[in-house]
Amino acid sequence: MHTLLLDSDDVGANAPMAAVVPAIEAAFGAYERGDAQMPAKSYIDLPQYNGDFRSMPAYLSVDGDAVETAEGAADWDAAGVKWVNVHTDNADRGLPTVLGTMIYSDPETAFPLAIMDGRELTRLRTGAAAAVATDHLAVADATSLGIVGAGVQSYTQLEAIATVRPIEEVVVADQNPERVADFIDHFADRFDVRGGEITEAAACDVLSTVTPVESPIVDRDDVGDHTHINAIGADAAGKHELSDRILLDAKLVIDDYEQTTHSGEINVPYSAGTLTDDDIYGALGEIVIGEKEGRTPTDGITVFDSTGLAIQDVAAAHVVYTEANEANNGTVFDLLGLADA
Amino acid sequence: MHTLLLDSDDVGANAPMAAVVPAIEAAFGAYERGDAQMPAKSYIDLPQYNGDFRSMPAYLSVDGDAVETAEGAADWDAAGVKWVNVHTDNADRGLPTVLGTMIYSDPETAFPLAIMDGRELTRLRTGAAAAVATDHLAVADATSLGIVGAGVQSYTQLEAIATVRPIEEVVVADQNPERVADFIDHFADRFDVRGGEITEAAACDVLSTVTPVESPIVDRDDVGDHTHINAIGADAAGKHELSDRILLDAKLVIDDYEQTTHSGEINVPYSAGTLTDDDIYGALGEIVIGEKEGRTPTDGITVFDSTGLAIQDVAAAHVVYTEANEANNGTVFDLLGLADA
Repeated sequence: MHTLLLDSDDVGANAPMAAVVPAIEAAFGAYERGDAQMPAKSYIDLPQYNGDFRSMPAYLSVDGDAVETAEGAADWDAAGVKWVNVHTDNADRGLPTVLGTMIYSDPETAFPLAIMDGRELTRLRTGAAAAVATDHLAVADATSLGIVGAGVQSYTQLEAIATVRPIEEVVVADQNPERVADFIDHFADRFDVRGGEITEAAACDVLSTVTPVESPIVDRDDVGDHTHINAIGADAAGKHELSDRILLDAKLVIDDYEQTTHSGEINVPYSAGTLTDDDIYGALGEIVIGEKEGRTPTDGITVFDSTGLAIQDVAAAHVVYTEANEANNGTVFDLLGLADA
Repeated sequence: MHTLLLDSDDVGANAPMAAVVPAIEAAFGAYERGDAQMPAKSYIDLPQYNGDFRSMPAYLSVDGDAVETAEGAADWDAAGVKWVNVHTDNADRGLPTVLGTMIYSDPETAFPLAIMDGRELTRLRTGAAAAVATDHLAVADATSLGIVGAGVQSYTQLEAIATVRPIEEVVVADQNPERVADFIDHFADRFDVRGGEITEAAACDVLSTVTPVESPIVDRDDVGDHTHINAIGADAAGKHELSDRILLDAKLVIDDYEQTTHSGEINVPYSAGTLTDDDIYGALGEIVIGEKEGRTPTDGITVFDSTGLAIQDVAAAHVVYTEANEANNGTVFDLLGLADA
């Protein structure tokens, strides 16, 4: 038995969104059904380095019969841990702020099937979660997507959301014109994509906000009457991208109660008492398994508050490993000295 | 920047006990001084597979000035996570029950400096912890070592303890004669090593018990008057190797209060109330930093209850990475696509 090493290119090449998005949807369903285990993230804080580490272990078991996808109905389960960090000074060193390494293991034997770049994996699963939410919450004929923040996380927003809605027009807003140009370059052959103001992005059928700001940059008045918003950027206490008014007026869907109230888009108004439990419509998992309705004809703005769950990483790793294994991609390595086992 | 892959052979080849034991000692000291972070282990229980996963993250910072070793006094720090498991059915599959993968990271940038076999690493750091305890608690002229249980963990007991005491005679007890023969074969050229009964092993100057039993197999009467015992085997509620009488009569030293009372050698009598906090002399870290005395002339039996701490893994990984890097061992791999960074 060998361990498969999958570098950033391997991960990107073996993650078709048409497979990742359903896997992430299945993960949210499994979590809601109680078929997943996700211990709280463990933090190591290193103020002396302006950074932290986070350990994110998870297991999930998907009952194929309970999942409606084009994939059919195979049962699968998956386990692993992502070791990730935020080191803000890395930018000055020419290194990414967020790195990450994923160990993907066979739940039955614990054998480490693969070790993969966790940075690329994080981008994939974050885009895929936004797509799952968009599928359940955006208007059915959504053709326009606004993106606020054209950093590394923005690309998979478009890649993933385009698998669940017939996106044609994309408006990307960013203070940095170079990033806007890069984004346009990357997608120009597949979409009608242009730079624009936040107000233009927010008027689209779907909006994804992907910035690290601590003061809201999207106003209530800018948002279209039936826009679905994926609030991706907030991942720590103090961060938020949307005005409180948007959150209070919207049908508000979260990924995980503990994480969103602590560090998600809603954490600031929640801590202030401006937004309470009564303002939260439900969890994405509840909608996925049909316990709660997604968008209904009477809904206006909808918001998905995404913090990123360890079950998403494990589910995305499952897809990447399966695809890479079938395609004979990656580098086999006898890490544990069990080549003959 | 590349990540260094270190397989089981690489780990074994780059872990001189003369360096690992002082690093583990420094780790216990750092932990006691508050210069370490070690979130509680996260468990994922998989009864359907008769197994579990454990995520063990840690960080530690060693002040060279506070450490007395032959190594000199360099400051160092280290971070990482070990992803480990216990899958008892693996034996039937020809796989080890306990596997493990370690991600070793630069605390300053979070870059994953190395990924290494966690199984070999676990053996090393467990032996090294026993050696640190033996150094502080065994009689100064200890020349005989008893080993009960000749499994994979027994070899590093002898390797490590022989660096802190002039061990000449070794008595190894195991129900499986093949394992005893293998152990003797392995060490015959370096030690006077023979098979024997538990009673003979327990009469040695130092005894290490390395079995998974749930009923004590070492009686009070078997133990030498001044024997130091490393109780290694117990790592889960319900396991213990030594009779309660030994624990109650001994100067009892633990590695970590939470872990030992929950799953260490003392967990069964502690849960029953037979053994209480008053029976615990202190933590190994307290002795390492001089807050409490090790063996004194009036001491009889001493016991070290070892459960295994994440800081030990990180400290051992630090040695292995440093040695392998200097020796140009291992396999360089551009996991994160940052070769040019």
